[in-house]
Amino acid sequence: MRSTTPSHLDAAIRRVRPVDITWRERAEARLDQLTKPRGSLGRLESIAARLCAIQETLTPRAAPRRLVVFAADHGVTEEAVSAYPSAVTAQMVGNFLRGGAAINALAHVAGCAVAVVDVGVAGDIDASGHAAAFVSRRIRSGTRNMTKGPAMSDDELASAVGVGLDIADDAGNEDVAVIACGEMGIGNTTAASAITAAILGMPALEVTGVGTGIDEAMLAHKVDVVTRALATNQPGRNPLAVLRTVGGLEIAAIAGAYIGAAAHRIAVVGDGFIATAAALVAASLCPPFLDYWFAGHCSSEPGHTLQLRFLQQEPLLDLEMRLGEGTGAALAMPLFGAAAAVMNEMATFDSAGVACRAEDPGRSAVLP
Amino acid sequence: MRSTTPSHLDAAIRRVRPVDITWRERAEARLDQLTKPRGSLGRLESIAARLCAIQETLTPRAAPRRLVVFAADHGVTEEAVSAYPSAVTAQMVGNFLRGGAAINALAHVAGCAVAVVDVGVAGDIDASGHAAAFVSRRIRSGTRNMTKGPAMSDDELASAVGVGLDIADDAGNEDVAVIACGEMGIGNTTAASAITAAILGMPALEVTGVGTGIDEAMLAHKVDVVTRALATNQPGRNPLAVLRTVGGLEIAAIAGAYIGAAAHRIAVVGDGFIATAAALVAASLCPPFLDYWFAGHCSSEPGHTLQLRFLQQEPLLDLEMRLGEGTGAALAMPLFGAAAAVMNEMATFDSAGVACRAEDPGRSAVLP
Repeated sequence: MRSTTPSHLDAAIRRVRPVDITWRERAEARLDQLTKPRGSLGRLESIAARLCAIQETLTPRAAPRRLVVFAADHGVTEEAVSAYPSAVTAQMVGNFLRGGAAINALAHVAGCAVAVVDVGVAGDIDASGHAAAFVSRRIRSGTRNMTKGPAMSDDELASAVGVGLDIADDAGNEDVAVIACGEMGIGNTTAASAITAAILGMPALEVTGVGTGIDEAMLAHKVDVVTRALATNQPGRNPLAVLRTVGGLEIAAIAGAYIGAAAHRIAVVGDGFIATAAALVAASLCPPFLDYWFAGHCSSEPGHTLQLRFLQQEPLLDLEMRLGEGTGAALAMPLFGAAAAVMNEMATFDSAGVACRAEDPGRSAVLP
Repeated sequence: MRSTTPSHLDAAIRRVRPVDITWRERAEARLDQLTKPRGSLGRLESIAARLCAIQETLTPRAAPRRLVVFAADHGVTEEAVSAYPSAVTAQMVGNFLRGGAAINALAHVAGCAVAVVDVGVAGDIDASGHAAAFVSRRIRSGTRNMTKGPAMSDDELASAVGVGLDIADDAGNEDVAVIACGEMGIGNTTAASAITAAILGMPALEVTGVGTGIDEAMLAHKVDVVTRALATNQPGRNPLAVLRTVGGLEIAAIAGAYIGAAAHRIAVVGDGFIATAAALVAASLCPPFLDYWFAGHCSSEPGHTLQLRFLQQEPLLDLEMRLGEGTGAALAMPLFGAAAAVMNEMATFDSAGVACRAEDPGRSAVLP
């Protein structure tokens, strides 16, 4: 196993700076001058202050916003871990490109452009649709079966991470303000479960859920598959070793895109269990990455709650969703628009001529 | 006290029909054909199915959407229950009209037109701004002090409810698909606390919170004011008696708008503690109203959780907000656009050529 971080990833990691806390404080001071009781916009104020710190401004942008779906197949589907056949990965990529999937509908209403990246799909893709941009960067036709050995080689891992870094560079060049990554890959909750078990140091049983929907017997089998994959590969908690041996090409690409986006000072909205497995890797490789990452929603996949607890992040939405594709992130996107609008459009008590405390000196005026 | 419901309200109540459950079932069947694992969009699917049932269609609309802020003052502010002086009500109405308030910013990004209705403001309003439509329907310059007697007369109550019914009629005539009501009125968490205590049959202490922000001593005083208002007026649990004696003109108007919107089969998005006090009244007068009402968010005002539990509604968002004005509803609005887009834009497994179950007959294909 290669012992060093691929050089382009290493360069991106070195470019990720922790946000300057003084920008957050300036933003909070500004929020307290706006025509509302202090703190009354709750967590929206926290999004606003974090956006300000990321962009080093008091007038943050939440547009353009972009949603990138990374797609790849998983050799572990040989072990019958999913309710759906592998062929669905390529079929769903075609569906994304024609605009018929949930992520198309949700990104559309969230004012978010969609791009789909084939980083390792096994089947043929009908790329005739143009509802989403298509980026063809297939590294191999799905990973190897991780119960029998590493899911990918060092070079394949570096290439997959590099695809994500390239996507982040494009977003940086195009001044994207907020980015989210989704995924499509039959079998990828199995890979995400293995990553999560390894990095959190927990047994597979505690982090593995039903994914797209399997019964109890299949779930027990899936737990066994994850356990065997970890026993075979023994990746320890080294994030790149985990990603290479029990990860997925799309998960590696997301980890790269996450770190690359942070290097470009782009706010990153997390999605569900699989995308958050990539966040575990990114945060392990590069802790300041978390200054740029927001937990978009809480999936009903039980391991997601454990991931978020490990990352010490509170999800913005909790709508009992478990679809992936970036759908949870897309639903959270309007909150970023709202947070930016608060900073950019609201009047201050002074400018609006609104009294900010009780005028009668006999009253106790605690706020603001 | 007048013993009968005002005739225009009574007519609206009689026009509110429970939604036809078969439309919900048809919507759920359609959702199960769309290219996603069954149920995987969680509560978004429930919003979609409810919208379909309300509109009696499988292709629901979430636009045009409208946010109406009802403003009025409260005589109970004589008792020093708020951190802000009454003058702030008129000042904030001016701020709404100039577009400088939180609700302007949040409604703007949610694609939601704002109208402001003066149903009982005490001060002069600078109506020179045009960021929101202004409707001047002032019934009186604030309610009477409810610790000394009823907040309003029978006729004033009927007029205030009528303002809300008129607003709903306008929305119905203009084919509004989703409406939300916000409020502005210094002192109105005190009125909302009294309404909530009365209708839930709970002591003031349990339902009264800090509103825009008061200290512990002022909170104890506010609880005492609510307790005294209820002792003076003895409204029991009769919703109109409660609304008249310890309510507010803006809260009465919201109750009217709520019932009127349901009569027009318009989906209604709830806001925080004060708007939900109006929902308690509306639901008590007209239980099928709740088929049209969605709990937009959960406020950090503690009584809001008790109200939602009483109404048996789960809030869509929980961002620790406590601002009012309709801000929680505005933030929830995009979820309705998303739910409608799912129904209108997503492909089915058949139309997209996506396999909907494991092709290998040796596999267990539980879903969909």
